[in-house]
Amino acid sequence: MFEARLPQSHIFKKILEAVKDLLTEATFDCSDSGIQLQAMDNAHVSLVSLNLRSDGFDKYRCDRNLSMGINLASMTKIMKCAGNEDTLTMKAQDNADTVTFVFESKNQDRVSDYEMKLMNLDREYLGIPETDYACVVKIPSGEFARICRDLAQFGESINIACTKEGVKFSATGDIGSANIKLAQTANVDKEEEAVIVEMQEPVSLNFACRYLLNFAKAAPLSNQVSLSMSLDVPLVVEFKIDDIGHIRYYLAPKIETDDN
Amino acid sequence: MFEARLPQSHIFKKILEAVKDLLTEATFDCSDSGIQLQAMDNAHVSLVSLNLRSDGFDKYRCDRNLSMGINLASMTKIMKCAGNEDTLTMKAQDNADTVTFVFESKNQDRVSDYEMKLMNLDREYLGIPETDYACVVKIPSGEFARICRDLAQFGESINIACTKEGVKFSATGDIGSANIKLAQTANVDKEEEAVIVEMQEPVSLNFACRYLLNFAKAAPLSNQVSLSMSLDVPLVVEFKIDDIGHIRYYLAPKIETDDN
Amino acid sequence: MFEARLPQSHIFKKILEAVKDLLTEATFDCSDSGIQLQAMDNAHVSLVSLNLRSDGFDKYRCDRNLSMGINLASMTKIMKCAGNEDTLTMKAQDNADTVTFVFESKNQDRVSDYEMKLMNLDREYLGIPETDYACVVKIPSGEFARICRDLAQFGESINIACTKEGVKFSATGDIGSANIKLAQTANVDKEEEAVIVEMQEPVSLNFACRYLLNFAKAAPLSNQVSLSMSLDVPLVVEFKIDDIGHIRYYLAPKIETDDN
Repeated sequence: MFEARLPQSHIFKKILEAVKDLLTEATFDCSDSGIQLQAMDNAHVSLVSLNLRSDGFDKYRCDRNLSMGINLASMTKIMKCAGNEDTLTMKAQDNADTVTFVFESKNQDRVSDYEMKLMNLDREYLGIPETDYACVVKIPSGEFARICRDLAQFGESINIACTKEGVKFSATGDIGSANIKLAQTANVDKEEEAVIVEMQEPVSLNFACRYLLNFAKAAPLSNQVSLSMSLDVPLVVEFKIDDIGHIRYYLAPKIETDDN
Repeated sequence: MFEARLPQSHIFKKILEAVKDLLTEATFDCSDSGIQLQAMDNAHVSLVSLNLRSDGFDKYRCDRNLSMGINLASMTKIMKCAGNEDTLTMKAQDNADTVTFVFESKNQDRVSDYEMKLMNLDREYLGIPETDYACVVKIPSGEFARICRDLAQFGESINIACTKEGVKFSATGDIGSANIKLAQTANVDKEEEAVIVEMQEPVSLNFACRYLLNFAKAAPLSNQVSLSMSLDVPLVVEFKIDDIGHIRYYLAPKIETDDN
Repeated sequence: MFEARLPQSHIFKKILEAVKDLLTEATFDCSDSGIQLQAMDNAHVSLVSLNLRSDGFDKYRCDRNLSMGINLASMTKIMKCAGNEDTLTMKAQDNADTVTFVFESKNQDRVSDYEMKLMNLDREYLGIPETDYACVVKIPSGEFARICRDLAQFGESINIACTKEGVKFSATGDIGSANIKLAQTANVDKEEEAVIVEMQEPVSLNFACRYLLNFAKAAPLSNQVSLSMSLDVPLVVEFKIDDIGHIRYYLAPKIETDDN
């Protein structure tokens, strides 16, 4: 028996928005410690890693480990039927071939349940080594989404350059060139508006714009995003999810043969 | 001479939204008692019946009975030109081949008139027998629209099952199955949020989702919708229109040969 | 060296919206007195004339006259990257083949710069003779935009007829005919809601709806629009731009051979 309840369904709605353009299907691994999802995107370029701790749920029970292969387009359809303030409960029997989503309104006057067929999906776990990064930059996630959207108009790559003073995002293309500079904030009233650079040594790396745009779809999950970078290792883009976990995206830098 | 005035044009805008996906043209029958429209939808599956009483108008005059054949796409274009708070006046001469819509702003500084050509349309009146229904369910019209929209993702039919406890809407398809249960509300502060079931005997009937979706477009006309059902007779979906009348849709249940 | 700074970038955003459907590229002529743009639309039917005085800028410097040929689609992409409250600075070297747009947030924490390539564009200046118009009508610019949009549904031409009492806009087509009458306002609290007719003699002229619709896209620049008309000379549609200048559109009346 697996059962997990969240007081508000909107977190799951946002998680689906954050992965559904990268993945068409994925396996949710449920265990005593929580729910995990790890998958390469459809083009096998970036890696998505989602972690929801059992203690972050309102109610959580998982008698036996369970791997649920899920078509994300179908799950998105179901999640759209949930009111944002509805309670969400996921339920599955051991060895089940279906999972049930139950949405309950606050006063319980409206209860809806959706039973969805599960799929058998192949997959392999990638070990992600712990790394010390040369730079870790924290910026407001809305700002990150806007930068990706703005620079996408100018070129296919975004250069992220990090110094003590702040972080600079750049792109170049037919129209011309664009640079967006964010200064490290000295002291801010609201932590979520801060720009914070933790730097061992400066880095300047290029990334495929199209993937950063997809990662930015997780912005509604968190006020802040952190970008961890080192030469020759994948960028990590991390969004915290309330008190329950996080979603991380990994993307290798582009090797620029001509310039850089 | 025919003349009918409403203090606010938005009622007519909403009426057009409520019929324009079912009907491409329709005859408005004007008499001393008011305006009536009755028509089968383009596919001849469902029936639309609109009734606006003369006493619900601000000013109403109809010297001779008048049947106005109207292209609803053209009328929709005209109604879009009305401000929501504009006064609407419809005018036609006896035996006229045009109708004129006049929109006046509150301070009369802006007056616009639109003259539209009328059409000759064949039609036949269907007598609708008065029926005692096994179940009459009243629910908030926004809830009805949402249920139709949600379940449309799962299957082509919606099952409506009615018991003393409440009403259940269900659909099944490739993705899986969906059930939305509304409990009868014990006591509610706002009448328009109530779910009320008046039941002689339980019913469980299947209806084509596509038509229910079209009927739900009348939701802006009224806070409440009533669904009247009996075995083997058409469902009646009724929306009251302020103090002036109502719109009703009739749809026969689907005969399920395999299950049910 | 050319440098011009505006405290808020949204004025330039709106200017681009006001010309980008008429022009694909245009030359901005910068001199000591300000920035001017004059161009026929792509179909060579109407004329756009933009005038921004140097004293309307926060900071303005133009050492040598400069003609910047600009692809307006590219410039629109760049302007979309500006926050509405950002300071906008345009910069170019003498004889430069690029122009740079710098956007700065209020607290200077975010600075972005966009360098755009310039084009060599042929063009000729048209002398526009000063004219005394038979009628000058001032109406709220939102009302003008709405009238164009409403009447566009009915026909390809809009007739504008002006008398002492007010102004009437009309269109006729397959659906029927439409007339929108605005009465001259006696006394209004808000100047921008006034309808003012200054008339030497009545006029009634026809104009291509499609162009009026394009001119109406300048409505966000100003609360009021003025329409100046005389028999056989082009209509002038003028929107003031805050304290900095104006945009004017010129359009010759249609010669109606059959009616009128």
